Amino acid sequence: MKKVRNIGLTLQYEGTRYQGWQKQKNADNTIQGKLEALLEKMCGEPVELQGSGRTDAGVHARAQTANFKTTCRMSCEEIRDYMNRYLPEDIVVRKVREAGERFHSRLNVTGKLYRYEVDNGAAPDVFRRRFAVHIPQKLDVEAMRQAAQLLCGTHDFAAFCSVRRGKKSTVRTITSIRIEQEGEILAVYFKGNGFLHHMVRILMGTLLEVGKGERAPLDMERILRSEKRECAGETAPAKGLTLWEVYYEGTL
Amino acid sequence: MKKVRNIGLTLQYEGTRYQGWQKQKNADNTIQGKLEALLEKMCGEPVELQGSGRTDAGVHARAQTANFKTTCRMSCEEIRDYMNRYLPEDIVVRKVREAGERFHSRLNVTGKLYRYEVDNGAAPDVFRRRFAVHIPQKLDVEAMRQAAQLLCGTHDFAAFCSVRRGKKSTVRTITSIRIEQEGEILAVYFKGNGFLHHMVRILMGTLLEVGKGERAPLDMERILRSEKRECAGETAPAKGLTLWEVYYEGTL
Repeated sequence: MKKVRNIGLTLQYEGTRYQGWQKQKNADNTIQGKLEALLEKMCGEPVELQGSGRTDAGVHARAQTANFKTTCRMSCEEIRDYMNRYLPEDIVVRKVREAGERFHSRLNVTGKLYRYEVDNGAAPDVFRRRFAVHIPQKLDVEAMRQAAQLLCGTHDFAAFCSVRRGKKSTVRTITSIRIEQEGEILAVYFKGNGFLHHMVRILMGTLLEVGKGERAPLDMERILRSEKRECAGETAPAKGLTLWEVYYEGTL
Repeated sequence: MKKVRNIGLTLQYEGTRYQGWQKQKNADNTIQGKLEALLEKMCGEPVELQGSGRTDAGVHARAQTANFKTTCRMSCEEIRDYMNRYLPEDIVVRKVREAGERFHSRLNVTGKLYRYEVDNGAAPDVFRRRFAVHIPQKLDVEAMRQAAQLLCGTHDFAAFCSVRRGKKSTVRTITSIRIEQEGEILAVYFKGNGFLHHMVRILMGTLLEVGKGERAPLDMERILRSEKRECAGETAPAKGLTLWEVYYEGTL
C-alpha cells in the first residue's frame, strides 16, 4: 500500500487577477482552483488542498498556509520547484514541508495577522498601487490609534461582519492593532485568533472614517454594542489587504 | 506677452510596459511620449519635456526628474493633479515645482543613484517579481563587495558600455557601490557622476558573475584596463534596475 503523506505549503500570491482563494464551481479563476489543478497533474491523483481560510477577490497573501494529502513521492524541494515552474507568476510556493499526519491548515490555526496598507501621499506611489489604497486626504493617525485600541480584546464583532450565517458565534479576540507610518505609507496590522467575513476590511474602513474626522474614536464602543453592520463604516477596498502570517501551536 | 515658466517634475514609473524613457518616431509607447502628449493637451501648446537622462525599456524610476517650458497658468498642484488624473496608472507625477529660468534637468545633473535588486531566495518573492531578478543560486556577497570596491573611483568605463559613439569620453566617476541584504533581497546601489549606456546593467551583470564564483573580484581591474566590452560580464536584465535619485547642485 502506498504511504499517504500530508504536505504543508506556504504560499504567496498577488490577488489582483483572482476571484479569491476559494474554489468555485463555474468560473474558476481562483487561487485554490489553480493550485489544485496543478497538484492533481503533478501527483496523478485527485488532490484536495485545504487552506488556512479564504481570502476575498483582490486580497493578497504574503504567507498563506495550506496542506494536502498525497501518495506522490517527490521530495519537498522537488514539489516546490515543480509548482513554481508551472504556476502563473502571481502565485508562488515559498515553502514545502512534511506535515504531521493530523495537521490541518484551517482547524489548527491559533491566530492570524493581516496587514492593510494606505498610501497617504498627495500623489500615489506607483510601486504600491496594487497593494495600497491611495487616500490623499491627511489622516489623523492618533485618532485612529485611539479607535483601534477600543477594538482590541474579546468582543462580539457582529457589526463588523458582512454575512451572518445562522447562529454561529461572532465573538472574536483581536490581540493587537498596530499602526505604523513609514513616510507616506500607513500600514495597519490586525492580529487576532480569527476574523469573520470581511471583518478586517470593515474594521479598516471604520478606522479610516475616524482618520478623516468623520467619526470619533469613542464611536467604536457604540458600534460594537449595536451588533449591527450598518453602524460600522464602509468595507475598505480589497487591494489594500494582505494576509501576512498564519499562526499555529508550536512550529510548523 | 505671456510669461514663460520653467516647470520641474519628479516622476515615478514602472517601466515594465514601456519601450523606455526616450520618445521614438514610430511606435510611441515611451514614458517621455506619454508625458509630452498629455502636457501638450494640458497646456494647449507644443511642449518639449527634458528628462535627466534616458532609462532603457523595462527600467523603472523612483525619482526621475524632468522639466518643460510653458505659458500655462495652472498652479503646481493643479498640474500634478491634472497629470495624475490622466496618466496611465504606472506613471505618476510625484512633485511639481517652479524651476529657475536656467534650470535644465539633464545638463545640471551632478550625480545619479541607481538601485539594482536581486531576489536570492530559493523561491521568488511574488511581490518583487517585476522589480527584481530572481537568482536562486546562493551568491557570495563578500566577493561581490570586493569587486564593487575595485570599480569605484574615476576610470575609463569603456568595457562597461554597450555602444560607443564617436570619440566621446567614457571616463566616469563611481563614488560608491553599496550592497545591502534584507532577508533574501540583495539591493545594490550605484552612485556616480554619470553613467554610460547600459553601464549599470553591465556592472551588475559582472558583479553577479563574481557572486556566482565565475569570476574573481580582482578580474575587475583587468576588465577596466581592457576597455573592451567583451571582457566584462553579461548585461543584467532591465527589470531589476530602478533610477533611484537624481542629484543637482543645491536643492531643486
